[in-house]
Amino acid sequence: MARDSVGIVQTKYFTFENLVLANGQSLPQVTIAYETYGTLNEQKNNAILITHAFTGDAHCAGFHEGDKKPGWWDSMVGPGKAFDTNKYFIIASNVLGGCAGTTGPESINPATGVSYGTDFPAITISDMVKAQKKLVEFFGIEKLFSVAGGSMGGMQVLQWVMDYPEYMYSAIPIAITLRSTPQQIAFNEVGRQAIMGDSAWSHGHYYGGDEPNKGLAVARMLGHITYMSDYSMQKKFPVKNPEPNENFDFNADFEVEEYLRYRGSSFVKRFDANSYLYLSKAIDYFDVQKDNFLPEEKNLDIKFLVISFKSDWLYPPYQSENIVKFLKMKNQEVTYCNIFSTYGHDAFLLEVKDETRLIKNFLNRLYDEVFGGER
Amino acid sequence: MARDSVGIVQTKYFTFENLVLANGQSLPQVTIAYETYGTLNEQKNNAILITHAFTGDAHCAGFHEGDKKPGWWDSMVGPGKAFDTNKYFIIASNVLGGCAGTTGPESINPATGVSYGTDFPAITISDMVKAQKKLVEFFGIEKLFSVAGGSMGGMQVLQWVMDYPEYMYSAIPIAITLRSTPQQIAFNEVGRQAIMGDSAWSHGHYYGGDEPNKGLAVARMLGHITYMSDYSMQKKFPVKNPEPNENFDFNADFEVEEYLRYRGSSFVKRFDANSYLYLSKAIDYFDVQKDNFLPEEKNLDIKFLVISFKSDWLYPPYQSENIVKFLKMKNQEVTYCNIFSTYGHDAFLLEVKDETRLIKNFLNRLYDEVFGGER
Repeated sequence: MARDSVGIVQTKYFTFENLVLANGQSLPQVTIAYETYGTLNEQKNNAILITHAFTGDAHCAGFHEGDKKPGWWDSMVGPGKAFDTNKYFIIASNVLGGCAGTTGPESINPATGVSYGTDFPAITISDMVKAQKKLVEFFGIEKLFSVAGGSMGGMQVLQWVMDYPEYMYSAIPIAITLRSTPQQIAFNEVGRQAIMGDSAWSHGHYYGGDEPNKGLAVARMLGHITYMSDYSMQKKFPVKNPEPNENFDFNADFEVEEYLRYRGSSFVKRFDANSYLYLSKAIDYFDVQKDNFLPEEKNLDIKFLVISFKSDWLYPPYQSENIVKFLKMKNQEVTYCNIFSTYGHDAFLLEVKDETRLIKNFLNRLYDEVFGGER
Repeated sequence: MARDSVGIVQTKYFTFENLVLANGQSLPQVTIAYETYGTLNEQKNNAILITHAFTGDAHCAGFHEGDKKPGWWDSMVGPGKAFDTNKYFIIASNVLGGCAGTTGPESINPATGVSYGTDFPAITISDMVKAQKKLVEFFGIEKLFSVAGGSMGGMQVLQWVMDYPEYMYSAIPIAITLRSTPQQIAFNEVGRQAIMGDSAWSHGHYYGGDEPNKGLAVARMLGHITYMSDYSMQKKFPVKNPEPNENFDFNADFEVEEYLRYRGSSFVKRFDANSYLYLSKAIDYFDVQKDNFLPEEKNLDIKFLVISFKSDWLYPPYQSENIVKFLKMKNQEVTYCNIFSTYGHDAFLLEVKDETRLIKNFLNRLYDEVFGGER
């Protein structure tokens, strides 16, 4: 185990009753899967909530017993890393509607004794954040030192700012937008149509039978293209195009086809198609621009670090620039970096060196400012 | 009928025997659906071949009896238009492998008496062009004045240059590339997986039964996104994002969802899923960069007009710049324009005013040069 790893970790579960959702419906009981790394200090003011992207989970850093691969942001979370577990108490949880331990469409509906399926209510990013707040309160934390995340994680960061601005010292939204645009919604809708068009989907009540794996794989393949860049795909698949032969039969004859098919078929083993539907809709509904986000009269004092990546065409830099402009118009303190990267949207998981410097400096400076350097 | 319309037109058919394909197989008989506008002059040197995009057809201009909508490039083809039918003889045909009259997977296989389905051989852009040449020869034309087309039509233009360079005075490739890139191939592969994952597809032998319309609609929806731009989608769907209500059920609640679903369901009425598979593969195989394209020793004298569009992210301007560089390295005469447009790839069908000026000037100047202004 590397010295800068948080080591062996395990997912824990926190359950609470009656979550009233944005659409007016309620969930009688919600369980949240979460992990924590580092130690909560006595003042309980060193906690950072890390929020995950669309298909992420609570396993953000370290290793589950027996696993060879660490959590999804292990490069950024650990002793001495960007989110330094020697200094901060890190909380990561699986989102509401997900399929990695937190209540979602695959969970048992107490009213029927079987999985919710599409009887699960519509959820929003605001609902996810509401559930996270219950978890944070469970630790007795009165104010988070920071909320940080990329992609859909960045939406949760902005939603935290909107819904609980007094509850946080800082916010780090990465590779995200103030609102989902028609193009982003359109890509999600294609994925949903692929899933719902799969005859195995059965209007969402497929648990225990055939699963809509073909449709889900198509959705994932498309998602994967939008996470990369034109350039990064050319670098990854540099070989010349093949030519058709006599035995042509629509099997994969390009490297990129094989790769995408593989990514699709691995994904369906770990992800639930209905969660894909619900979470993608939550992403589509996201729009903090239209709401009375950060009213000036509140005199908030949240410090922002906004990060985008030059080759990200799913959440292009201009959308982060809009976040910055919006925050500055509301008289907020914002640092913005548009990192050079050829990785596309995936850069938020890959540009570790630059992100580490930026985030570490930002958090340390703020810590000294807020707490006078004391721990 | 507008004065600058070619008026009522009809599709005609030309049949020939035994087409040997790039992959080594043959088609015993090929029928090509085509239309012509204007008059072939005595010298037979005023003919322009217009090549269509992925889902286009031979009906390029004018109206079919009873139709309210004209052909797909009617804005560019007619008396006084970019492709001036007072001056030029225009030929447009449906590509090999298509489903609008030319031999393709839906055609009857003479060996079995039923539709080819996936027994149809793999085809390439080179095969399409080979079939077009038979049609052009049928008119007794020894040298085309120009070959022009956008998107997959542009591939055919470049393939004509590669395969029959002595057979043309000029070439107008629009919004295209020297070779399909992994990202372009990846989008096509997602569409194919959606079609082949549809249980109605039945390995391509679905004729006379249920058709894989759900999969084909998903493929089309995705295609449609890639033809537009982030900006043009925001302009087209300017309303704020809705919020979920209690009756949420994954019906379309965003304008863009409804629009895409509509585009998908109209498309399946006019297009054959197997043609989608075959033509998308032909596009993917396209690569004139790797071949010995335009050997310098041939001393060709083809004039090129290369056009791209600034917001086209499916075939971005840098790919047209590569075409220009490649041609200049081969000592060819090239005019290049990167037209400002917010329409994305669709711009080649929509930026009529700019394209008209560019193409008209290019063709007229060349005509005077080549034939001394005589008609």
